[in-house]
Amino acid sequence: MKLLVTGGAGFIGTHLVRELLKRGHDVVVVDNFTLGHKENVDCFENNSHYKFYNIDIAQTKEFCTKLKDEKFDMVFHLAANSDIQKGGKNPDVDYNDTFMTTRSVLEFMRISGCKKLFFSSTSAVYGDKKELLKEDIGDLKPISYYGGAKLASESFIESYSYMNDFKTVIFRFPNVIGPNLTHGVIYDFTKKLQDNPHELQILGDGSQTKPYIYVLDLIEAIVKLTLDTPVENGVEIYNAGVEGATNVTTIANIVCEELGYENVKYNYTGGNVGWKGDVPKFQYDLTKIHNAGWTASKNSDEAVRETVRNIKES
Amino acid sequence: MKLLVTGGAGFIGTHLVRELLKRGHDVVVVDNFTLGHKENVDCFENNSHYKFYNIDIAQTKEFCTKLKDEKFDMVFHLAANSDIQKGGKNPDVDYNDTFMTTRSVLEFMRISGCKKLFFSSTSAVYGDKKELLKEDIGDLKPISYYGGAKLASESFIESYSYMNDFKTVIFRFPNVIGPNLTHGVIYDFTKKLQDNPHELQILGDGSQTKPYIYVLDLIEAIVKLTLDTPVENGVEIYNAGVEGATNVTTIANIVCEELGYENVKYNYTGGNVGWKGDVPKFQYDLTKIHNAGWTASKNSDEAVRETVRNIKES
Repeated sequence: MKLLVTGGAGFIGTHLVRELLKRGHDVVVVDNFTLGHKENVDCFENNSHYKFYNIDIAQTKEFCTKLKDEKFDMVFHLAANSDIQKGGKNPDVDYNDTFMTTRSVLEFMRISGCKKLFFSSTSAVYGDKKELLKEDIGDLKPISYYGGAKLASESFIESYSYMNDFKTVIFRFPNVIGPNLTHGVIYDFTKKLQDNPHELQILGDGSQTKPYIYVLDLIEAIVKLTLDTPVENGVEIYNAGVEGATNVTTIANIVCEELGYENVKYNYTGGNVGWKGDVPKFQYDLTKIHNAGWTASKNSDEAVRETVRNIKES
Repeated sequence: MKLLVTGGAGFIGTHLVRELLKRGHDVVVVDNFTLGHKENVDCFENNSHYKFYNIDIAQTKEFCTKLKDEKFDMVFHLAANSDIQKGGKNPDVDYNDTFMTTRSVLEFMRISGCKKLFFSSTSAVYGDKKELLKEDIGDLKPISYYGGAKLASESFIESYSYMNDFKTVIFRFPNVIGPNLTHGVIYDFTKKLQDNPHELQILGDGSQTKPYIYVLDLIEAIVKLTLDTPVENGVEIYNAGVEGATNVTTIANIVCEELGYENVKYNYTGGNVGWKGDVPKFQYDLTKIHNAGWTASKNSDEAVRETVRNIKES
């Protein structure tokens, strides 16, 4: 099959592209290296089944024009801002990189006749809810521009999928970690400890508790539920989650333990959130994705530990 | 108070502007006459409390620049495409007129420091659901570009309201009818019968059944729940509905009866929807808005009849 991966030079995208090429597909990547890195995709360059376009996908007209001669069997739309904290400082970031990229992908699919879509959504669409997050709960109130832009993307995807008979799978990702991580708490802690091995500043009070999924588990789930399983017309939404959740202090402990830092003093900035728009705690209901035949191999704590080991080895 | 009404030259906007001026407020209208009409607002021109800007609100930069010296206590954001059928033919219509106008209003409020917002959403955000529509039900799957763009607007509004401490009221409108109607089934039937008083083409099988609210009832509800009642930080969503619902054949009967057409032959195009993206039947749960102290004076059938009488008198 011929597959388009938007954001294919990013952290998750690179892992997906590798898996799709391994399975013998023709893979076209579009990225503009806002968060992706050229070095991530250099390794694919000699593969005759791989092709790369440097385009800002948010520019709908340019994106549709430059790809007008390509016909795809499916689009994996991963391109987005993935740094919620950064987006909180300037709403243009998530408007452009998270929402407008989706609008462009939908227009491209409508015009080119592509009928199958995978979209990477997020736990942030739920907002700050105390209940167990099930895919079909209501009253979604995203508290970050990022969450708002992803939920708006889901809304556009629903209407485009109905009007154009798309077969669409949406995964709401929790925190995704693993090899080649570009930002987030584990990444920050390892950087800070390199600079100062005696003290570690922790945003909030350390109690923020979220599920962390290992990126290779996530890739397995994406491929299984989009390519290995028949997809019906319409939109199917899954919480792509793992068992358990890890709090920030536990992450600091695992990082120190695995990287051999001892007697590190933790300085908490205080408050129960890392920044405005941060959801301090959430837990997914995983019934739907488990019933679809997929379960993560690593729980949240194991994913954190493995990721720190990846950093140590890199 | 100084109030901004976007889409203030449109069908609903004009009635709202009249009421706000009557209450002694300073009212600024922004409209570009896509669906609004200059004649609708000509009557306000000599009112020193009224001011008009002709701007395409979807052009965020232009909109924010031209209004940069205005400070508002509140924005009533009504500007949108309101013709779902038209939007179904070209997704740019609702992207621009329904979604982008909202994005512009939110940016303007963030930049100018305005903290209070009313947004006109729609029953179309729910999609084609069989259950009674309650504001907090989940699994919203809009089936029209219009519904998708309104739900995406709600998503952006949620995140902007949280990040900027807005006090926001969202009404999800059903079909709104009354004096100066510009389109919709009642408008269409009266036009068609003027052309041919013996036959009437009816889209679908006539069984589509929806609640119709009389516009002056709706204006009363808007003013009551935004200006006469304290609004808290965050977003409060109300189904702005009426008792009952009216099917399309009943509307045809009322139109013929009130306008004096006899023995009209109804030609049904068939199928249970008027066009792709049309939701054939829905009914609101009205508990929340009734508990807030407002109930419509006219039920759906009464609103239809009164609207036909308005047309007869005009």
